[in-house]
Amino acid sequence: MFENAGTTNLEQLGEFGLIDHLTKSVELTQETTDKGIGDDAAVLDFSGKKTLVSTDLLLEGIHFDLRYVPLKHLGYKAVQVNLSDIYAMNGMASQITFSIGLSSKFPLDAVEELYAGALLACRKYGVDLVGGDTSASAQGLVISVTSIGYAKETDVTYRNGAQEGDLICVSGDLGGAYVGLQLLEREKRIFLENPNIQPDLEGKDYIVERQLKPEARKDIVQLLASLDVKPTAMIDVSDGLASEVLHICRESEKGCRLYEEKIPIDPMTYDTAREFGLDPTVCALSGGEDYELLFTARQSDYEKLKSQPDISIIGHITEVSAGRELISKSGNVHPIKAQGWNAFG
Amino acid sequence: MFENAGTTNLEQLGEFGLIDHLTKSVELTQETTDKGIGDDAAVLDFSGKKTLVSTDLLLEGIHFDLRYVPLKHLGYKAVQVNLSDIYAMNGMASQITFSIGLSSKFPLDAVEELYAGALLACRKYGVDLVGGDTSASAQGLVISVTSIGYAKETDVTYRNGAQEGDLICVSGDLGGAYVGLQLLEREKRIFLENPNIQPDLEGKDYIVERQLKPEARKDIVQLLASLDVKPTAMIDVSDGLASEVLHICRESEKGCRLYEEKIPIDPMTYDTAREFGLDPTVCALSGGEDYELLFTARQSDYEKLKSQPDISIIGHITEVSAGRELISKSGNVHPIKAQGWNAFG
Repeated sequence: MFENAGTTNLEQLGEFGLIDHLTKSVELTQETTDKGIGDDAAVLDFSGKKTLVSTDLLLEGIHFDLRYVPLKHLGYKAVQVNLSDIYAMNGMASQITFSIGLSSKFPLDAVEELYAGALLACRKYGVDLVGGDTSASAQGLVISVTSIGYAKETDVTYRNGAQEGDLICVSGDLGGAYVGLQLLEREKRIFLENPNIQPDLEGKDYIVERQLKPEARKDIVQLLASLDVKPTAMIDVSDGLASEVLHICRESEKGCRLYEEKIPIDPMTYDTAREFGLDPTVCALSGGEDYELLFTARQSDYEKLKSQPDISIIGHITEVSAGRELISKSGNVHPIKAQGWNAFG
Repeated sequence: MFENAGTTNLEQLGEFGLIDHLTKSVELTQETTDKGIGDDAAVLDFSGKKTLVSTDLLLEGIHFDLRYVPLKHLGYKAVQVNLSDIYAMNGMASQITFSIGLSSKFPLDAVEELYAGALLACRKYGVDLVGGDTSASAQGLVISVTSIGYAKETDVTYRNGAQEGDLICVSGDLGGAYVGLQLLEREKRIFLENPNIQPDLEGKDYIVERQLKPEARKDIVQLLASLDVKPTAMIDVSDGLASEVLHICRESEKGCRLYEEKIPIDPMTYDTAREFGLDPTVCALSGGEDYELLFTARQSDYEKLKSQPDISIIGHITEVSAGRELISKSGNVHPIKAQGWNAFG
């Protein structure tokens, strides 16, 4: 009781360090557990199909700023972020639970907006909201989402299946969500200095939506199925391309070569990054929150993939001793480093 | 953007009112969803067995006070509270996800303690921890647990199956967790006034443990199976006996008669309640957090149940027009009212 605990610092450890540290003593004992911690979702075998479960926590002041995030968008995004993990297993999401903790000062119609956004995402993606918890919060807004899905055993795609020579592919385009955030942060500063100035986001809809209202790539999972392409490894891009490709390399015990010129960046993302004095490639590599799917596929699938407008082939998997490298537009070779978000930084 | 929302007050609505309000527009569209919001856990059909999913949010300053809750106990309790919902469906829990949001000021060994408690609960109950999210928190400690379990279709027990004449049964004893909380709150006040005074909880282990380290009643689910008793309705006692029996009556569209003299109260709970000037029966009816199982069973199961030391038969189900009543020890009839915890009160 009233005990005092020690001194090791979470900032030093970082988010991944903390997870590794905490989970090293986790033992799996259930026959129904195929895969626990360590991928985008847990895989459970409830006879026939595999059940996929994933969960995320979104906290005010860490993951969102209510001064510029409309609540409906926040509810929508909270669900998308979570569904994205199920799609990243090459599965279909089928249910979510949605829990909120909120101050009693929070007006009802604000909660309704939040919930409406979550339900909109559910309807659009064909997912049932099947549970949740609603609680008072003594502090800010807390959102916790768990999503459940399924896949045939042979379709489930882990992070560890990449083979030497596999193509590295990514859906959509990258960096937009991060550049959109820079824009919103700038307008917030201007608004806080002078509340009479309306935010100037004209013509920037695409990247603002990338930040506020991301779309999980259910369509890519369906596209791959229709092309009869089984990815060898897959992950969703939540922390930035660099961090995610390193996850696949590490889990698969492989190296990689990415080509800067192949990384898909929308022109609006590109131009706006430049306006902010940012390198668009760095935004794509380290920005995060794009919720695109990064996957590897066999070279024999090249013909099927190369002409898909929503898929870019950005590199290939190498043996582990070849390192994890980015070839710049000018032909220089750079080691890839994860500079993603550190939750405790 | 920067929008302002309206004025309806969450305090007026209360937790159940808010849940009802928010969930009335939830539609279920998935073939795999048998039961969504409205019971202890969602029921999903993934061929063969039913998959059960339940989730809870625990927030510092609302659900726990770190000034007297040891972190290991907190982790243990966070899991138990959630497993209890799976058992309340007459199922077996098999997996959990465990998410935490915490300040970067939180020392590592404190997080380890929290996690150790969660893992202890998992080991003891034969449950795998299969996922979770770890995040910085700008405010207090946030814990979110989702538990997953399974049951044969014919075993799943909802809240709405109680029939007229059914026995009302409860496991273990009631009120201890609430009286234990009063004890801890008193010692906290004394400690805050004079930190040199050590807490005096001697001889009160049982009720302090009922509050800090509750045990979900997996054993009761197993016992009922071994007795070949299929409950007609079941719920776990998280908000107090009154609130839970009313849930069963409302969902089953029935009335009930409970007998005060039959309500199981441990002598230590009884005596300590008296010391605090509290009515022990009120502690049992409205205290909550006991995590016992309240269930109804057919009269034909009476012989099987009556001699079970861990099960008390405390009343019976009536037709709805007979009301929901408590017969006091002196023979007076009182309508049962839910005076459970209001999350926004």
